[in-house]
Amino acid sequence: MLIVAALGGNALLKRGEPLTAEAQRANVQTAAKSLVELVRAGHNLVITHGNGPQVGLLALQGAAYKPDEAYPLDVLGAETGGMIGYMIEQEMENALGHDCPVATLLTQVVVDPNDPAFANPTKFIGPVYDKAEAESRAEAAGWHIAADGDKWRRVVPSPAPKEIPDMRVLKLLLDQGVVVICTGGGGIPVLRRKDGSMIGIEAVIDKDAASALLARELGADALLLLTDVDAVYRDFGKPNAAPVRSVTPEQGRALDVPAGSMGPKVTAACDFAESGGISGIGRLEDALDILDGRAGTLITKTAGSKA
Amino acid sequence: MLIVAALGGNALLKRGEPLTAEAQRANVQTAAKSLVELVRAGHNLVITHGNGPQVGLLALQGAAYKPDEAYPLDVLGAETGGMIGYMIEQEMENALGHDCPVATLLTQVVVDPNDPAFANPTKFIGPVYDKAEAESRAEAAGWHIAADGDKWRRVVPSPAPKEIPDMRVLKLLLDQGVVVICTGGGGIPVLRRKDGSMIGIEAVIDKDAASALLARELGADALLLLTDVDAVYRDFGKPNAAPVRSVTPEQGRALDVPAGSMGPKVTAACDFAESGGISGIGRLEDALDILDGRAGTLITKTAGSKA
Repeated sequence: MLIVAALGGNALLKRGEPLTAEAQRANVQTAAKSLVELVRAGHNLVITHGNGPQVGLLALQGAAYKPDEAYPLDVLGAETGGMIGYMIEQEMENALGHDCPVATLLTQVVVDPNDPAFANPTKFIGPVYDKAEAESRAEAAGWHIAADGDKWRRVVPSPAPKEIPDMRVLKLLLDQGVVVICTGGGGIPVLRRKDGSMIGIEAVIDKDAASALLARELGADALLLLTDVDAVYRDFGKPNAAPVRSVTPEQGRALDVPAGSMGPKVTAACDFAESGGISGIGRLEDALDILDGRAGTLITKTAGSKA
Repeated sequence: MLIVAALGGNALLKRGEPLTAEAQRANVQTAAKSLVELVRAGHNLVITHGNGPQVGLLALQGAAYKPDEAYPLDVLGAETGGMIGYMIEQEMENALGHDCPVATLLTQVVVDPNDPAFANPTKFIGPVYDKAEAESRAEAAGWHIAADGDKWRRVVPSPAPKEIPDMRVLKLLLDQGVVVICTGGGGIPVLRRKDGSMIGIEAVIDKDAASALLARELGADALLLLTDVDAVYRDFGKPNAAPVRSVTPEQGRALDVPAGSMGPKVTAACDFAESGGISGIGRLEDALDILDGRAGTLITKTAGSKA
């Protein structure tokens, strides 16, 4: 099978952990150990990743040095693609023992300049703050902020991914059995001008939506959205909360999941399942078990028979 | 011909210019306009780039935000590979009109842990300072510093590149006519452990040396080292200074060039020419003219006949 596995940015730099290279590398090692099981099971693999905490961190670093010379979000997104892609590639190569080539490809993703997301920022980036600190930072730096659970974070526009121009190069590498790391941070957000040329835009594309688009365009068999929660939950946060094991896209869309980070995952998973693929959601550690239905949540058109 | 063209980090973020994304993009556009002429002339192209100013900038940004959580130089190097690679890829695609695929590949480069460079830092990174400011920053942050012309800069270890593990993937893309951007910042410096696994190391590899190694391993026909000076000069800085048009590697090694940035270029160019290739050194703007002997300095085994 061809599998697109998407690693959550928040699972690579966790809420409450320091946003250091060491913390990130430890989480990447956990992910690599899990993803290598997919390769050893004979599957072809594309790895994507989020960058919410990381791109926010780079924005904070730039502002702390020279706020007037801050880099735009498309360039910062490209930087996180280098940072996280390098760590994933190195840990995958170390875990695979270099018997299978791994390549990290920078990936631009085209968005629509008229996407309503530009007027309504919703994508969490950077660290979490108490409400008062978030408000004071928002005031000082011109941020939009929103509640993320019991904490507050900066939010930026997250337009829908429309097109992945690098598809030809991606397919070329996959056809040769290369494990490809791409579409980092949901891809570098760009607009296509009337003359066909492209230019970056200040946004962070949702990596689950971009990964679902990538999986569809590659004709992948499965899309795994790997994060730090073990499954999608029915009645999340209530006393009768229970993990969802297997649902159809219709059943998945009817679930009442929190809008923050699980909402986009369920939407992307249902979209991909509707096109005929297998979608899975669960923990970084459980990649192969999710695919085989032993952990996490599976969303497939035929789930009804097993649900 | 297969050409490896190396863009100087200092030519993309110039001494004295603000270290902004805008300044960098303008210089990348100039480079892209020049490199596209090589593609249009029918050549296959690999683009590499330096990252001295950029990696130093990211180190300063990290230190300004949280010095205790600063990222190591290998990770910062990977970030610059994303930042600069993205800009080059986008501007190359825009200049080529998307009729030729362009791909940016993160590239690890293996160095020797016993390289004497680790005890003797020489690679300039970040902005230039007056001597007093450089000394006070060095004192505060534990930097090594050295004179770069009439200014002072931070210096870090610059070990020699030994091996490029991604060669198989690079060749695969080149065989399919893809313009490949790789070995950014001279490559991400890594050590190979006894068990074969790899781990990053705090250093910045000289991109000219890495580009010469890449050109040799690819069997490239030409290596162009593109920078912000128009040629190698005989008696540089003296009243009788004169550009060198064409020399053999032996003649090239006998030239008395400044150690800072031109020294490594001439060494890398001579190394590659000795292995039978054409080496050129000159301005970003002049790529095709340098190759054809109308600008810059050419170093070839057969230069004697034309010199």
